[in-house]
Amino acid sequence: MRKHGYCLSRNKVNRRQFNQMFALAIAAGMPTLAMAAAGEQDSGGHTSDIITPLPSSKGATPRTNQQPIGPSHIAMVVYPHFTALDMVGPNTVLAGLPEYRTHVVWKNREPVVSDTGLIVTPTMTFAECPRDLAVLFIGGGTGGTIDLMDDAEVLGFLADRGSRAKYVTSVCTGSLVIGAAGLLKGYRSTSHWSTLDILPILGAIPVRKRVVEDRNRITGGGVTAGIDFGLRLAAILTSEARAELMELMIEYNPQPPFATGSPSMAGPQLTAQAHDLLDLTWEDARAAAGRARSRLGLS
Amino acid sequence: MRKHGYCLSRNKVNRRQFNQMFALAIAAGMPTLAMAAAGEQDSGGHTSDIITPLPSSKGATPRTNQQPIGPSHIAMVVYPHFTALDMVGPNTVLAGLPEYRTHVVWKNREPVVSDTGLIVTPTMTFAECPRDLAVLFIGGGTGGTIDLMDDAEVLGFLADRGSRAKYVTSVCTGSLVIGAAGLLKGYRSTSHWSTLDILPILGAIPVRKRVVEDRNRITGGGVTAGIDFGLRLAAILTSEARAELMELMIEYNPQPPFATGSPSMAGPQLTAQAHDLLDLTWEDARAAAGRARSRLGLS
Repeated sequence: MRKHGYCLSRNKVNRRQFNQMFALAIAAGMPTLAMAAAGEQDSGGHTSDIITPLPSSKGATPRTNQQPIGPSHIAMVVYPHFTALDMVGPNTVLAGLPEYRTHVVWKNREPVVSDTGLIVTPTMTFAECPRDLAVLFIGGGTGGTIDLMDDAEVLGFLADRGSRAKYVTSVCTGSLVIGAAGLLKGYRSTSHWSTLDILPILGAIPVRKRVVEDRNRITGGGVTAGIDFGLRLAAILTSEARAELMELMIEYNPQPPFATGSPSMAGPQLTAQAHDLLDLTWEDARAAAGRARSRLGLS
Repeated sequence: MRKHGYCLSRNKVNRRQFNQMFALAIAAGMPTLAMAAAGEQDSGGHTSDIITPLPSSKGATPRTNQQPIGPSHIAMVVYPHFTALDMVGPNTVLAGLPEYRTHVVWKNREPVVSDTGLIVTPTMTFAECPRDLAVLFIGGGTGGTIDLMDDAEVLGFLADRGSRAKYVTSVCTGSLVIGAAGLLKGYRSTSHWSTLDILPILGAIPVRKRVVEDRNRITGGGVTAGIDFGLRLAAILTSEARAELMELMIEYNPQPPFATGSPSMAGPQLTAQAHDLLDLTWEDARAAAGRARSRLGLS
């Protein structure tokens, strides 16, 4: 534990932030949160995560003074070569819901390196992760994703927590991993536009859409779709009014400079360039999906 | 150094990724990159950063087989309580430009904790940071930003590197920090919508726009504006064709679920709620800007 001695306890929150957090929790009628902010342990005994104050909901929005119905833990899986933006988009939104506890989860607490070289340290191991989750989440990544599709420890963790989680979710090629864990069989799902054709190998029904909801499975498209996904999920977990406030707080008024964000917008030449860059990797993903299909007895 | 022994060397890139990276570098006519991928040191002696292969540019786009004109280092400053999405948006785009080396920079290499509890480890200290940069970048954060506005070590670093950097840039309230370092005096600039009125205290000319370019200052709006900013900067650093490809790769075809991403879209009631959450913090920022104004001799 000494190696990870920089735990996210209250002493890492500065005075101003702590005071603000405490005041907001009280104002929002969330004494449990205020107590947690003041250093009380939650029922899981984990005091190591910051409780962020934004956006709380001083006033008009519904459900803001309630605890969530059911489990309150959100587990976001990270792994070597993950695409950080897939996960940081929804993390920004979900960690702003003070009724929920957002954890960054991996096999161990050793730092993992994203596909852009960002070094991120998990806050919780698979073993420490609560059995019952509000949300199980995994984002995508190119090579790293494919490695996970054959990783028994990862697939076992996802299958177990996913069997009880209130929502089983992904962004980008994270859907290939939860698919390989058997969690998308018969579910309408999405993924990065370039990998939609791999979903049926895993028994899923591919849908070319930014965010796809089918019963308790919620999947988002490629990389930046994580923001749209996170806002949709925040509305489901709390209320539309809360999610609307969050959309304003993160100034989500996007103005893509080039209007090339999907194959149909980009046109055939640019799309072919992207395929040139990706297809070799997705060949490996298709092979991994085939192996998963056999293991899952889908063939 | 042992504490940070998980350096981002080639042995952290798996075989598939390495082969792909090497092949792309060769195909794109970038032998220097291929050598770097194969383990050669760059001129700065830093071999600790992953060189990401995506998006390289196999084929039709201009400037892809050139080294950047001028410095090739991009320094992205992180700090306690930074807003991770401000920085991860542009990081995703900029670290995908293989001619540039993207570094995550702070006073030391101890992990910093974002305002959502994400633990990120810097890859380079201020002291290690190259003197001449292609891009100096800092994102925002609420309480953390304000602390930096009075931090002589941080302001000194920014003022020094900013005086020579090819581009001095920010997203969200990062503009308040570079402003406090004296780098926005007389420049049209932007920030999170809720802090635009603080910019003039720092001598800047506020502009309510997603991305604002004035000579070599490029500033982005709140949080998610970092993606638009990153794509614009990628076009400036390489070519529009490269940035268009990147926009497709990260599937930036946003569909905000609630159409409340700016005060005018959100309407007065929701905007008032956001002000309730933020204004106490921005009072402190305004005071810090006043102190910076005195130090900079703007009064």
